Amino acid sequence: MDLKQALLKVEPLNEDAMKKAQEKLDSLTKPLGSLGKLEAMIKRLAGITGNIAPDIDKRAIVVMSADNGVCEEGVSSCPKEVTSKVTRNFMKGITGINVFTNFTKSDLFVVDIGVDDDLSDCPGIIHKKIRRGTWNLAKGPAMTRQEAIRGIETGIDIVEDLYSKGYKLFGTGEMGIGNTTTSSCISSVLTGKSPSEMTGRGSGLSDSAYKSKVELIENAIRINSPYKDPIDVLAKLGGFDIAGIVGCFIGAAACKTPCLIDGFISATAALVAVEICPQVKDYIFASHVSKEPGTRSVLEALGMDEMMDLEMRLGEGTGAALAFMFFDAAAAMYYNMGTFGDASIEQYEPQVD
Amino acid sequence: MDLKQALLKVEPLNEDAMKKAQEKLDSLTKPLGSLGKLEAMIKRLAGITGNIAPDIDKRAIVVMSADNGVCEEGVSSCPKEVTSKVTRNFMKGITGINVFTNFTKSDLFVVDIGVDDDLSDCPGIIHKKIRRGTWNLAKGPAMTRQEAIRGIETGIDIVEDLYSKGYKLFGTGEMGIGNTTTSSCISSVLTGKSPSEMTGRGSGLSDSAYKSKVELIENAIRINSPYKDPIDVLAKLGGFDIAGIVGCFIGAAACKTPCLIDGFISATAALVAVEICPQVKDYIFASHVSKEPGTRSVLEALGMDEMMDLEMRLGEGTGAALAFMFFDAAAAMYYNMGTFGDASIEQYEPQVD
Repeated sequence: MDLKQALLKVEPLNEDAMKKAQEKLDSLTKPLGSLGKLEAMIKRLAGITGNIAPDIDKRAIVVMSADNGVCEEGVSSCPKEVTSKVTRNFMKGITGINVFTNFTKSDLFVVDIGVDDDLSDCPGIIHKKIRRGTWNLAKGPAMTRQEAIRGIETGIDIVEDLYSKGYKLFGTGEMGIGNTTTSSCISSVLTGKSPSEMTGRGSGLSDSAYKSKVELIENAIRINSPYKDPIDVLAKLGGFDIAGIVGCFIGAAACKTPCLIDGFISATAALVAVEICPQVKDYIFASHVSKEPGTRSVLEALGMDEMMDLEMRLGEGTGAALAFMFFDAAAAMYYNMGTFGDASIEQYEPQVD
Repeated sequence: MDLKQALLKVEPLNEDAMKKAQEKLDSLTKPLGSLGKLEAMIKRLAGITGNIAPDIDKRAIVVMSADNGVCEEGVSSCPKEVTSKVTRNFMKGITGINVFTNFTKSDLFVVDIGVDDDLSDCPGIIHKKIRRGTWNLAKGPAMTRQEAIRGIETGIDIVEDLYSKGYKLFGTGEMGIGNTTTSSCISSVLTGKSPSEMTGRGSGLSDSAYKSKVELIENAIRINSPYKDPIDVLAKLGGFDIAGIVGCFIGAAACKTPCLIDGFISATAALVAVEICPQVKDYIFASHVSKEPGTRSVLEALGMDEMMDLEMRLGEGTGAALAFMFFDAAAAMYYNMGTFGDASIEQYEPQVD
């Protein structure tokens, strides 16, 4: 499905299903609205799927791995080879996201969308390499507009394929040394906030390295001077991982399926997706707020807030995978809680004071 | 175990176990500290139990139910009979806490510590009634000092008994119409914040009813003029439910076992427990931040912050039960994640940028 087709398939939420889900929520033996975001989650799931009994048992985390040309500027304390090594480790089952996808009974799909290494010997990876890493955005555009769109369509295709295999709940993740730099660039342009506000010391950068990173981002934005068009911003200042995740969000919305944000990089991709098509927002859920300082600003720009704050900064989709727990908790409430009819209490909002 | 004996058993955390747990955490294939609170949780569990492989499989939510004499002042939009009705509904298995204890594979123990009803016909309840509700704190002390201590010792005994039956992780909950009023009184005195800052509209109170509630709390504090002694504050301005939960926290610390805060009432009880014995704090974990505005202030006074914000305001221990998920997630990380030895990556903090 190409980007245009996908965007045409994104529809408003089903109001009727949301109304019916709300009626059921209000019949449960608790003060109206007292389970907060868990109730809102169920209502929105009904609106997304058009089904008042949404099924979220089969769920996937899609991790996009890619290298970033900007690494040659020394923006990370971590060698860029780690992108490839960690991507291989996903397949060995030993990483954080392996643990948390197992823990939440979800399946992990890892996409090589632009790793600067030949991973063809690595079984299980979805091979969709656009190029072996982007160009250095400190010197010019990271990719062409065509590559950005190809990245987005890669994400759309993967989600569409998984949806056809029965997956009904998605989370996004990434692996790519240098991708807080690309995310700071994009989110700074799209939110209008200064690079210093959107930049963190993720990798334990020293004061001087942090200052250099901020200056690099300021210069990169000036040199590339993107239009206010989100695809132009993505092409000039992004990475293939971010492009792929943008596609996941758009593809999930086209399939009428919820898709979760993980941390800063993934939130930045969600912002790009929503700038491309505002309606996509209704299909996106925030999960946690990561330690990267820009995360909060991007979530605010999206009008979303997190479910949890565990001070995590691992990436890989770990926050999104953990947030699947809340969907299970919400479903447990919705399907298993008694009603006022069972409870010998009238529905006069018996709120615990 | 009486209060004095319990307090004598509360010891500092085991530093050696914490050091060893930290070494194991730092060997896992992730940037140092990047799993934030999940790592801190494991380290503290090791310190609490003295065991570097803590076992948290058998866990309990203890719910204290009691009535509050102050209800005759009309502080709640909800009839006080709801305390008894909901307590009975816990035993029918249809309430929110039933759903979430099932969901997190934990067991629910409901204690009648002061319900204004005869619940002797209700099977499964732990009968520890001190009195059929407190006196009206707007007119004088809610209970005697002896009753407050008896309430605390009830909580200690219950946790000690459950510990002897193999429970290794506790969460607290309550049911008691009027108990945000008692909690606002206590937390206002103990934090030094004004009653208006510590008082919410939990029950959907109107502007004028909210104003009356704040005035009532101001007057109650003035009339009872408690000493700065936490047991005196508890006796004069508290409820039997809060006293019981104070005992749960102290009892858990005495048994070297973690115990979770739920919402505002439970956090207030934690604050009383920590004022009685500062060392107890190390055994307490916050879970969520509830919609009651005082919750944040009490957690700040405790120097704790929440794991999740689901905008819940149901009480019953629902937030604590849900937070057991995070302990499971932390254990999954600790026991199942690969090490740098498995990962072909050196331990040079390969942080994702």
